[in-house]
Amino acid sequence: MTDFANRALLPAGLRDMLPPDAAFEANVVNQLMNGFAAHGYERVKPPLIEFEESLLDGAGAATSSHTFRVMDPLSQRMMGLRADMTPQVARIATTRLAQVARPLRLSYGGQVLRVKGTQLRPERQFGQAGIELIGSDSPAADAEVLVLTAEALINLAVPGVSVDLALPTLIPVLFGELGLTGALAERMRAALDHKDSATVAEAGTAAPLLARLIAAAGPADRAIAALKDLALPPAAAAERDRLARVVELVRADLPGLTLTVDPVENRGFEYHTGVGFTLFARNIGAELGRGGRYLAGGTEPATGATLFMDSVLSALAGPKPGPRVLVPAGTDRQRAKALREQGWITVAGLEPGDGMSEAKRLGCGHVLGPDGLLDVQ
Amino acid sequence: MTDFANRALLPAGLRDMLPPDAAFEANVVNQLMNGFAAHGYERVKPPLIEFEESLLDGAGAATSSHTFRVMDPLSQRMMGLRADMTPQVARIATTRLAQVARPLRLSYGGQVLRVKGTQLRPERQFGQAGIELIGSDSPAADAEVLVLTAEALINLAVPGVSVDLALPTLIPVLFGELGLTGALAERMRAALDHKDSATVAEAGTAAPLLARLIAAAGPADRAIAALKDLALPPAAAAERDRLARVVELVRADLPGLTLTVDPVENRGFEYHTGVGFTLFARNIGAELGRGGRYLAGGTEPATGATLFMDSVLSALAGPKPGPRVLVPAGTDRQRAKALREQGWITVAGLEPGDGMSEAKRLGCGHVLGPDGLLDVQ
Repeated sequence: MTDFANRALLPAGLRDMLPPDAAFEANVVNQLMNGFAAHGYERVKPPLIEFEESLLDGAGAATSSHTFRVMDPLSQRMMGLRADMTPQVARIATTRLAQVARPLRLSYGGQVLRVKGTQLRPERQFGQAGIELIGSDSPAADAEVLVLTAEALINLAVPGVSVDLALPTLIPVLFGELGLTGALAERMRAALDHKDSATVAEAGTAAPLLARLIAAAGPADRAIAALKDLALPPAAAAERDRLARVVELVRADLPGLTLTVDPVENRGFEYHTGVGFTLFARNIGAELGRGGRYLAGGTEPATGATLFMDSVLSALAGPKPGPRVLVPAGTDRQRAKALREQGWITVAGLEPGDGMSEAKRLGCGHVLGPDGLLDVQ
Repeated sequence: MTDFANRALLPAGLRDMLPPDAAFEANVVNQLMNGFAAHGYERVKPPLIEFEESLLDGAGAATSSHTFRVMDPLSQRMMGLRADMTPQVARIATTRLAQVARPLRLSYGGQVLRVKGTQLRPERQFGQAGIELIGSDSPAADAEVLVLTAEALINLAVPGVSVDLALPTLIPVLFGELGLTGALAERMRAALDHKDSATVAEAGTAAPLLARLIAAAGPADRAIAALKDLALPPAAAAERDRLARVVELVRADLPGLTLTVDPVENRGFEYHTGVGFTLFARNIGAELGRGGRYLAGGTEPATGATLFMDSVLSALAGPKPGPRVLVPAGTDRQRAKALREQGWITVAGLEPGDGMSEAKRLGCGHVLGPDGLLDVQ
């Protein structure tokens, strides 16, 4: 391996984004953030690094094993490099912005770092872009966050956007009402996560209901209808009704969106306190984002969603290069400026005489001549 | 201190950027990058973290004492969190993009982290946005980079943009030609850095020339005229002529720019191999950016400049808030969409009946009524 190649070698899971991808990512993030801003979501920017105990507090605890630590030489305390921006935004909402009127709408976009990649996401650095709606317990809040993130993907021209809805609170609430506890409850929750009907059949009197909950999973309208047919105890029925209301509100805003419901899914929603969802695209296997209801600062009702920029970008067709024109040295700069205002990329010739061959070498399709644009052959 | 306040406490030099500042910074960076892109600078995005030896190679060595380190659990090698993006971009140019036609124009924007702040810049995290022009030794390249960064600041409405030019190669070259070496040369270089005419008078036969070099510092036109009057030995004269040519090219493009020259300044340009410059604004003391000529990968002629986003933002008047309108629940969503397309920020009412008082509470100046926009009193 040459010295040059050696120097180019980055740690596994980290990479240089090159032209035109880096500009494309920045433009996509910008488009997302502008879309959220138009709906009243105001951007916050927490630091890349902060004290470990605030970074890993509450919902942040889930990222503890993914988080790089360094010591702060000033305070001699440990700091963590954020592995997720969501807990930071919740911290800002419940501390610095505690006095701001609710519902509070915040947005964020930035890079996160993880100690190790996963099989599904080998990258150790990727971008997040998301929104949080804090201080409202309304189903309209759940629907707004889902609709805005799904619509953001649709507006980017992500093909075949779909959303899987989950209700991670349903089973715990139902088990509580059914008196299903201890080892049996644990075994049944695992069985439900795996849609394991055989094991569920051992749940005694609850078995038929659990089997019907598994069977209800599928396209949202059918799933909601099936759930409405079930005789659920009051608290579980309230959860179900809330989910139905969210689906109804989402349907009203985005009637064409592919929406599925899995009422027994819990995995990946361990910290959620209500409706959760995952965003997919037709052309890639990875999640494009996820969201759901939680308690900000452990007490305040909130819902939010995060888009994973690496997955979002891989679902997109990629950038279209802009038209490039070589502007020879000594050209009146107002002429070049006028071209830029029309959308041209102007590349200045640095040496007198730079013309056709230089334009070709630099990937310019045109040269600005004394009488106008000349095609490069 | 309450638990809440405690959790909000960040390490010294790190901070949460809140609304509306975070969106404003992102918009300013975006405007800068779009401006550079229109001149053919293509964006690259190196990772936040990479192997220590590649991060601190060459010009990166200057940031060694500012750089946080963490161990990579995968390779068991040390990694550094970047304290400066410039060495990363030079690495990309001379390795991954080694085969791309020169001159190569690259841009970058991102966050850097430093172990400690300085008196002038207490922040330990700040944004950089910059350009590199790699593979040209032409004075036109120096001028292009200076003009584009100064013009970028002017386009942002930074008040009173000025540029201080330095020529850190002049004194070493001159001393070589004059046979000034060893301890005397060192003492004279320090004296020149401090404009210490008394010490310079002890330089023997070189003393009058050095005194005139100190005296030449000032507004560019006068400084260049004074330098042209000096009888310099050939290599020093060539350096002087190059600087004069850069000034001439910058003047042609930006005749109104305040431009000063300090021909004996060396501090802060230790790694530069030609013309260097520092960008200032009338209303703040800190540098807004700096740039200059260097050798990318130790061998390839290059010039570039970096803007420091914290300083740039503090020189700006700040964002103007967009007009906000509350859109009551159940409003036809096409009406809200039409308002957004006109530049309105639409804030959805989450509960039926949200109207005037809710709008007022949420900082909306208007409510969308059945017959159009209503002013909030």
